[in-house]
Amino acid sequence: MNLKGVLRILGFVVGMEGVFFLLPALVGLIYGEYPAALIYLVTGVICMLLGLLTVKVLAPKGALSKGFYGKEGFVATSLSWIVMSLIGAVPFRLTKDIPNYLDALFETVSGFTTTGASIMNDVEAMLHCNLFFRSFTHWLGGMGVLVFILAIMPMAGGSPLSLMKAESPGPTVSKLVPKAQKTALILYGLYILLTLAEFLLIVFDPSITVFQSICHTLGTAGTGGFGVLNDSVASFSDYVKIITTIFMMLFGLNFSFYYLLLMKRIKEAFKLDEIKWYLGIYFGAVILMLFDLAVKGYGLGKNVINVFFSCASLMTTTGYTVTDFGEWPVFTHVIFFALMFVGGCAGSTGGGFKVARIMLLAKQIGRDVRKQIHPNRVTTIKSDGKAVSEEVLASTNRLFITYVFILALSALIISLDGFDYTTTFAAVMSTYNNIGVGLGDICVGDSFSMFSSTSKIVMIFDMLFGRLEIIPMLLLISPSTWRK
Amino acid sequence: MNLKGVLRILGFVVGMEGVFFLLPALVGLIYGEYPAALIYLVTGVICMLLGLLTVKVLAPKGALSKGFYGKEGFVATSLSWIVMSLIGAVPFRLTKDIPNYLDALFETVSGFTTTGASIMNDVEAMLHCNLFFRSFTHWLGGMGVLVFILAIMPMAGGSPLSLMKAESPGPTVSKLVPKAQKTALILYGLYILLTLAEFLLIVFDPSITVFQSICHTLGTAGTGGFGVLNDSVASFSDYVKIITTIFMMLFGLNFSFYYLLLMKRIKEAFKLDEIKWYLGIYFGAVILMLFDLAVKGYGLGKNVINVFFSCASLMTTTGYTVTDFGEWPVFTHVIFFALMFVGGCAGSTGGGFKVARIMLLAKQIGRDVRKQIHPNRVTTIKSDGKAVSEEVLASTNRLFITYVFILALSALIISLDGFDYTTTFAAVMSTYNNIGVGLGDICVGDSFSMFSSTSKIVMIFDMLFGRLEIIPMLLLISPSTWRK
Repeated sequence: MNLKGVLRILGFVVGMEGVFFLLPALVGLIYGEYPAALIYLVTGVICMLLGLLTVKVLAPKGALSKGFYGKEGFVATSLSWIVMSLIGAVPFRLTKDIPNYLDALFETVSGFTTTGASIMNDVEAMLHCNLFFRSFTHWLGGMGVLVFILAIMPMAGGSPLSLMKAESPGPTVSKLVPKAQKTALILYGLYILLTLAEFLLIVFDPSITVFQSICHTLGTAGTGGFGVLNDSVASFSDYVKIITTIFMMLFGLNFSFYYLLLMKRIKEAFKLDEIKWYLGIYFGAVILMLFDLAVKGYGLGKNVINVFFSCASLMTTTGYTVTDFGEWPVFTHVIFFALMFVGGCAGSTGGGFKVARIMLLAKQIGRDVRKQIHPNRVTTIKSDGKAVSEEVLASTNRLFITYVFILALSALIISLDGFDYTTTFAAVMSTYNNIGVGLGDICVGDSFSMFSSTSKIVMIFDMLFGRLEIIPMLLLISPSTWRK
Repeated sequence: MNLKGVLRILGFVVGMEGVFFLLPALVGLIYGEYPAALIYLVTGVICMLLGLLTVKVLAPKGALSKGFYGKEGFVATSLSWIVMSLIGAVPFRLTKDIPNYLDALFETVSGFTTTGASIMNDVEAMLHCNLFFRSFTHWLGGMGVLVFILAIMPMAGGSPLSLMKAESPGPTVSKLVPKAQKTALILYGLYILLTLAEFLLIVFDPSITVFQSICHTLGTAGTGGFGVLNDSVASFSDYVKIITTIFMMLFGLNFSFYYLLLMKRIKEAFKLDEIKWYLGIYFGAVILMLFDLAVKGYGLGKNVINVFFSCASLMTTTGYTVTDFGEWPVFTHVIFFALMFVGGCAGSTGGGFKVARIMLLAKQIGRDVRKQIHPNRVTTIKSDGKAVSEEVLASTNRLFITYVFILALSALIISLDGFDYTTTFAAVMSTYNNIGVGLGDICVGDSFSMFSSTSKIVMIFDMLFGRLEIIPMLLLISPSTWRK
């Protein structure tokens, strides 16, 4: 294990986080929140100094050039996210908006992992700088911090691709272009453009302030879901809700799609199998739900926007809410759970198990049946017209199994708190898939503050497992990684 | 598709069911239930005649000798179970103990698949002949009807092993001995011996009558769970409960174990990995549960027997109950759900996903982590000291995925009835894993009669999917099976 190489990456991350702290410091200045602004500024400077010290002295340039491979990449990524969260929680604690450090850590992990599960009971009482930083962690976590660092600075030596692989969600980190730095630049370029587009479309609406527009857009882009109002998105205008729905779906799309559009390979872009499944599942869920609501006498009208919004919010794992769907029929909840599990596309900012993987799982079931009928026929599974290797299929299957095991184990530990099944199961699903909305006792608008410390720690791990896709995290906590 | 061969198998099954009907007819005679006894007798004779007609005229001896392979075996097995259930439901309906045919069918499928989920609200009001037949379907379904037929009559030509493979639960239909008929004979021999042993151990207890002992034993052996009393097993003595606990665990064991004991290969028998996992999971669950009950102030005392009994009952998928564990803490329920899913050993009469498969899934997760650390080391997964082929691992994984998909789809349809999650989810888990006990609105002792017809049909399929291990059933309903 090349520990020095890992340390160098951590140095970059800590230093960069210091730079990021200047933004909330500025917000604090603007809104006259002086002590808080100072806290962000000082923490930021300390981080920058620590980062510089690490990168220049403790683990200088050569550290990445020898023996930095897949394992090191996974470990560095997991550790980066943990360190980033541990540091990010400090200002929440020091500004006393979140007086308990574990709670502050929960909130920060929830932010970076784009979960959006909050322990705050009254977000409107929070300082502007904290509200902004919360939403900014979503935006950063959505596309990835390491990807950001890769985009802006060349990392001599080592295997930058192994870092991207560990941090980018989905089975296919499509090597869009051969060089990792260029890929990272293109990804962040597209990301910034889409974010700006949404901001400009909503900022002039009278139902939302400029500050709210910024935070709301950052939360949509990262498919995060921290709201700046206690009722999340409910009090914004229908126009804002519709734009948000569209952008949640856009950010849940595989970014390869935008890249292909950018390259004018439009035909290819619209042939991506995953996108068909993504839209198919989304509209299928919307139709089933509208039908059930109509049949059961809930009335359509207002509910049409609510259903479109809620399905997009849960499937893309954003977690914004416009209505208390806890009062809708159980059938809609089962659909919600299914959407939460499916998640966004691979290579999007969305969480969940990812549409591409669901597609591979479903296609294998079909093949198994066909194989029993025609045992000697060779059958390959295709995606986007190309055969998928058996190794990719097998590892998708194993990931699914690990996913279910971790889900069950988490539910078991959290059930010790004694909440009912719905609450327990929804809390796990919500954090593990990086969604942030609960059901049952934590209905829409409620916070996760009622859980015990043990449960909060389990959920912190679940959020990291969900965002970093299990394997990097399992590697980190496996004893054999650290054995000589 | 060799339809004639399939028809010949169905002929055997229908004829044999006719013979089986003579037993409840006899019970009816003993208890003076004359019209009911006559119904069983007449139905039995008609079945025998139909069976004879099929086997002698419609699909005579040669039908099995040409082209009877895996596919035919799967289809014949699935159809046999469906036909068997359709016919088995007739006497329930005609004797008017279950006035609705769909309900009667639900009860019969629940019996044959050893589920034990009942639509009866008052079983004590049922006729003795019906009660006996209900329990007898458990016993028969436990080891398998086709295995029984194989054991007693030589099936010239064809591939009897493909029938056994389709009907016997678990990944390894260990070909104990080369000839299918001899394997079937040994299995039924062991099964009858164990059944007799339990019967003799409980019949002299004053808390249980001879008739109750017979039904109770048949239900234990098949890991079924239909009770003859409204409170299931609660009113029997502690002695009967302890013996039942032990025998539920014995019937949930892989029958290879008994075979090895029989052959005096005792060392080998105790080295079977699956058995270690089976006992490990069981005792682990018991200890966790006792601990939680003690901590939460439920008191041990009486609960010690209840916990040992309930864990054995749910893990072996029997479904007898001694107490309303619906009132226990949520933590215990999560453990119950986990046990329901794990199920008994492969090659036992228990349902569920099977311990052997869980073991393979868990070992693969460990291997995945190790592989990331040492990418070049070749790692095989071993069971009982032998390497498990990658094909077996892959098919186990795919089965798990199919399992979860069917679970989710069933829950979705059943949720249309509008019961709460617990009720909905427990009903699916209970029928799909062939357990029979619900939670939530169907608490212990309640029946499944409250569900809609649609839900009952879904659950009928779930029970068959659970008992016949998905692939045979998927084949049956797949259009391409029936295409020329």
